[in-house]
Amino acid sequence: MNSFGRLFRVQLFGESHGAHVGAVIDGCPPGIPLSEDDFLSDLGRRKAGARGTTPRKEDDLPQIVSGWFNGYTSGAPLCIFFANKNVRPQDYAHLASTPRPGHADLAARTRFRGFNDPRGGGHFSGRLTLSLVAAGVVAKKMLDTITISARLTEAGGNTDIEAAIRETMDAGDSIGGIVECRANNIPAGWGEPFFDSVESVISHLAFAVPAIKGIEFGSGFPAASMKGSEHNDPITDKTGKTATNNAGGVSGGLTNGNELVFRVAVKPASSISKPQKTLNLASNTMETLEVKGRHDACIARRVPVVIEAITAMALADLRMLWLSSQTG
Amino acid sequence: MNSFGRLFRVQLFGESHGAHVGAVIDGCPPGIPLSEDDFLSDLGRRKAGARGTTPRKEDDLPQIVSGWFNGYTSGAPLCIFFANKNVRPQDYAHLASTPRPGHADLAARTRFRGFNDPRGGGHFSGRLTLSLVAAGVVAKKMLDTITISARLTEAGGNTDIEAAIRETMDAGDSIGGIVECRANNIPAGWGEPFFDSVESVISHLAFAVPAIKGIEFGSGFPAASMKGSEHNDPITDKTGKTATNNAGGVSGGLTNGNELVFRVAVKPASSISKPQKTLNLASNTMETLEVKGRHDACIARRVPVVIEAITAMALADLRMLWLSSQTG
Amino acid sequence: MNSFGRLFRVQLFGESHGAHVGAVIDGCPPGIPLSEDDFLSDLGRRKAGARGTTPRKEDDLPQIVSGWFNGYTSGAPLCIFFANKNVRPQDYAHLASTPRPGHADLAARTRFRGFNDPRGGGHFSGRLTLSLVAAGVVAKKMLDTITISARLTEAGGNTDIEAAIRETMDAGDSIGGIVECRANNIPAGWGEPFFDSVESVISHLAFAVPAIKGIEFGSGFPAASMKGSEHNDPITDKTGKTATNNAGGVSGGLTNGNELVFRVAVKPASSISKPQKTLNLASNTMETLEVKGRHDACIARRVPVVIEAITAMALADLRMLWLSSQTG
Amino acid sequence: MNSFGRLFRVQLFGESHGAHVGAVIDGCPPGIPLSEDDFLSDLGRRKAGARGTTPRKEDDLPQIVSGWFNGYTSGAPLCIFFANKNVRPQDYAHLASTPRPGHADLAARTRFRGFNDPRGGGHFSGRLTLSLVAAGVVAKKMLDTITISARLTEAGGNTDIEAAIRETMDAGDSIGGIVECRANNIPAGWGEPFFDSVESVISHLAFAVPAIKGIEFGSGFPAASMKGSEHNDPITDKTGKTATNNAGGVSGGLTNGNELVFRVAVKPASSISKPQKTLNLASNTMETLEVKGRHDACIARRVPVVIEAITAMALADLRMLWLSSQTG
Repeated sequence: MNSFGRLFRVQLFGESHGAHVGAVIDGCPPGIPLSEDDFLSDLGRRKAGARGTTPRKEDDLPQIVSGWFNGYTSGAPLCIFFANKNVRPQDYAHLASTPRPGHADLAARTRFRGFNDPRGGGHFSGRLTLSLVAAGVVAKKMLDTITISARLTEAGGNTDIEAAIRETMDAGDSIGGIVECRANNIPAGWGEPFFDSVESVISHLAFAVPAIKGIEFGSGFPAASMKGSEHNDPITDKTGKTATNNAGGVSGGLTNGNELVFRVAVKPASSISKPQKTLNLASNTMETLEVKGRHDACIARRVPVVIEAITAMALADLRMLWLSSQTG
Repeated sequence: MNSFGRLFRVQLFGESHGAHVGAVIDGCPPGIPLSEDDFLSDLGRRKAGARGTTPRKEDDLPQIVSGWFNGYTSGAPLCIFFANKNVRPQDYAHLASTPRPGHADLAARTRFRGFNDPRGGGHFSGRLTLSLVAAGVVAKKMLDTITISARLTEAGGNTDIEAAIRETMDAGDSIGGIVECRANNIPAGWGEPFFDSVESVISHLAFAVPAIKGIEFGSGFPAASMKGSEHNDPITDKTGKTATNNAGGVSGGLTNGNELVFRVAVKPASSISKPQKTLNLASNTMETLEVKGRHDACIARRVPVVIEAITAMALADLRMLWLSSQTG
Repeated sequence: MNSFGRLFRVQLFGESHGAHVGAVIDGCPPGIPLSEDDFLSDLGRRKAGARGTTPRKEDDLPQIVSGWFNGYTSGAPLCIFFANKNVRPQDYAHLASTPRPGHADLAARTRFRGFNDPRGGGHFSGRLTLSLVAAGVVAKKMLDTITISARLTEAGGNTDIEAAIRETMDAGDSIGGIVECRANNIPAGWGEPFFDSVESVISHLAFAVPAIKGIEFGSGFPAASMKGSEHNDPITDKTGKTATNNAGGVSGGLTNGNELVFRVAVKPASSISKPQKTLNLASNTMETLEVKGRHDACIARRVPVVIEAITAMALADLRMLWLSSQTG
Repeated sequence: MNSFGRLFRVQLFGESHGAHVGAVIDGCPPGIPLSEDDFLSDLGRRKAGARGTTPRKEDDLPQIVSGWFNGYTSGAPLCIFFANKNVRPQDYAHLASTPRPGHADLAARTRFRGFNDPRGGGHFSGRLTLSLVAAGVVAKKMLDTITISARLTEAGGNTDIEAAIRETMDAGDSIGGIVECRANNIPAGWGEPFFDSVESVISHLAFAVPAIKGIEFGSGFPAASMKGSEHNDPITDKTGKTATNNAGGVSGGLTNGNELVFRVAVKPASSISKPQKTLNLASNTMETLEVKGRHDACIARRVPVVIEAITAMALADLRMLWLSSQTG
């Protein structure tokens, strides 16, 4: 189930240390102006380079293989590839016997009966988010005046994020973080409840992003401690604008004309330099593992543009669904 | 989009004050022993009656209309109805001009161009969760030795739940709560990443439940403040058992052989007796609204069995998907 | 897999001799004027009564259970039931041991491990087409000025259909027929190739109708004997009108602005009064079976309105898909 | 809608004269032995070269990009590319104003508002069937002892096929043909009626193949002229074997344990050397068109392996669906 979306549909493929990763974006309407350059800004935001991100460097240059003609999307499936150049599969030779704590190594081996590509997590790698970002670039183009903006608001429980990361790197450890996403100018009435509420579609995509372990909309978890008289947002105009925004822009699973606001919890990256205990499957004894490979001390730093991308994917699909029902 | 599931597929129908609510459960394997009595226990847990729940009383007796033969599911679609008996649509006559704060009234009117049934929220009503609970009863039967158990762990920020509710009722207000769900004996390797991770499927369903505004797995939001060396769960045996369970039983989107643990945030019910300000759409002025109808002071009290149901629906579907790929 | 459609989605339920049959129509846009009376004309065309149709008589009165408010579709799932009144399950007691030739009895028993409802074919019964006709009535309302008309053009190889049927009834036998369907005023450009060509979607639905064993579009099978210079339809105006219509109104899987024309082959009904040989599963010997129950000598006579219905379902869905992509 | 399949899911991409065509095969179970060489035999059967096929020559060498590890499918999406090398887009410059009769040129221009790639039919090209054949190779590997075999039984109404093609080429014209497909050793009980009958799924895929205009199962269209007493196949053993096979191996939409037999009608290729009349969209006058490019006089000659491929795709998916429901 490596595809998502009802009308704007994204199919992923690729592995961390295979030849390519990429996506086929099906259902993209014709006539959207698009060039390979359009991808560079968002891809750059996802890239390693900032303090606390992996030393693995990749060009991440997109190649549009199909679905494009003379500067515009053609309406046929848009296939985009990225070459994996800086691969070091030898770093992962030891994984056959010692699954890395926090990773999917052992669960994946069980699920795929040992046939999965284990190198760097294979298909479970965060490298697959490259394709999400590419799909997000296309989706954003379909959303006209809607703006989507996500940022890292804290790392390791600290709002001085640079300091938190420096300290973590020195310790050979990793830290998690909170990413907040806000989207504006979404018309009221998008969403397909009962099951495809705005929150349902966004959370479905958010939990596909490696390392996400929680999501909340509007006031979120603190709403559980509030009273209805505090939480209810008074409606102040006919378009649905409210005086407060505890709902985070979603009522009854539909956009309500206010800012869409949600936050995701990013766990600390599982790969750390610090030695860890794990089971050696061959000897059936606990042993000390030092995870090689090139790691992110604060993977959360690279997550905001991915969260923007999945938000754009969700909204592009919900917009097309909404369009389909507006003529009786 | 009132259906969900790839193989174990549930289609809902009905409105709060219409003739019936119900569900068609398609993809249910043949040969599951089932009687109408099997539904009563879970339906009873969802029912009103406890302190803080609505005075609207319904029998909630299920009628199996199809897909059943001689005591067993037949493999054909299982259709289950519930009559709505205790309806009071006249309570909602005023909604035409004054949308209730916190409800979907105005967003739904926009989405459905005024043709939606507004009485008691219509199709957006929590009454639809009756059908989820029914589907959950069937799903639980498909899950052999797996146990699923959810409970309300706090209400209005208070673990003395009865006291919190009593106080809220006296104030004519409502409170939210936290529901925690735990499932045991799930084999490792269920889930369909990239997009259909266990967390993705469960959260998709959870946010379809009215009033849910947040979800977190394992350590959840606090994981964002943890270090990798703390959060990584050491693997201690070949089945994937871990010494800690910060992952909440899910690694890389797959079940990992440990207890599945997640929590949802339930906002306070939007309907309260206290007068509230809202916009009169006809006069375009703010006015004071007193929401009639019969309300839950603590809707969260009725949520645990619904969360169990959606968990069972998700696991039943993931199990069938897993079965489909186990023969090469 | 008892549902079909991407946006206009129909979920069937029910068995021949159960309490009800029905359909949930999800994705139906709000604001379509609808009453129970609107169904009567098409349901009447499907009904038994004409020479050569079963003596089983049913009222076939639709009951709209949900998705309807004040005379219009509400945008919520439209659930429609029909009571089965004239059931005679005792006619089928012998089926446990002697599967009827031409029927699904034995294949269904294998597929559902003996748990399926065998009475009158259970869920495999032609009675399920009642729900298709109901869905078709709703779909036709969504198709504005498009007209869809199907008719029986021959029965048992004979264009004097009444004579062919009379002769067949006298012989205690059954005959097949050809049904031709024509639809006009469909705009050019509907269809979702590569896979969801107009022919693909219509044929998918057509072969769901019991007794259909072939379908051809435009010139159909005879096209295999034609030359390109004969078969190519010369384009004569900018809207795509062609001088001939060998393509049957579909080019490259898309409607091309001409009349949609296709024909289906209906096999003779499997249930006949004449004694037939079949295997007794208990004794493992061949024996003579006389199929009781009430049968159609020419089931094809009841098929045209069903074919119109599935054509309308297909077009309603393709129209919604087309609408979703018309704004860049 | 360029993907098909519920569990064994194929997503196509590419255009006739773009850089690549290819497919992503999602849902393919892990552990299937696979090499690039495995594709060559079926790809070779689809290739041009025999009399009556296009002089466009392509290597058609598959490149497995993902989903493969150490000689086996890994369970991740299998992406396969083919480079387009022998492209001649200049042959199609005139298409902007003169749509070719019999082709999708004008309907596609309408559907995609002029943004589609028109060169050689773009995404509507028969070149896309290369990806179907590749998916078929994988699907066949999943079907154990099932054998699938299709052949051209007549061309232009003539069973002396070589003679018919020679004559057609001399005339600068094209001819259609009939392709018959037979599959053996399919267990009884596969198929997902009501809507996903075996015939429905196969016909859905068959009509996605360019040039297919009809399909019939078993006795097919002639069944419409038969009596029930002739058409009913007497069951002769407990596995469902029948004395005749008018049903073509499918009863009630389920495989019945007998040989699956169906035929498709292939229209003559639309591209012919003979001059044809068509509309010049710019001048709005009829003019004579000579279709350049490199054409197939008998495209039906290349169809059998494509029909085998879509049959294998359908059966692989139905097998996985069947597996998912076999444990209660």
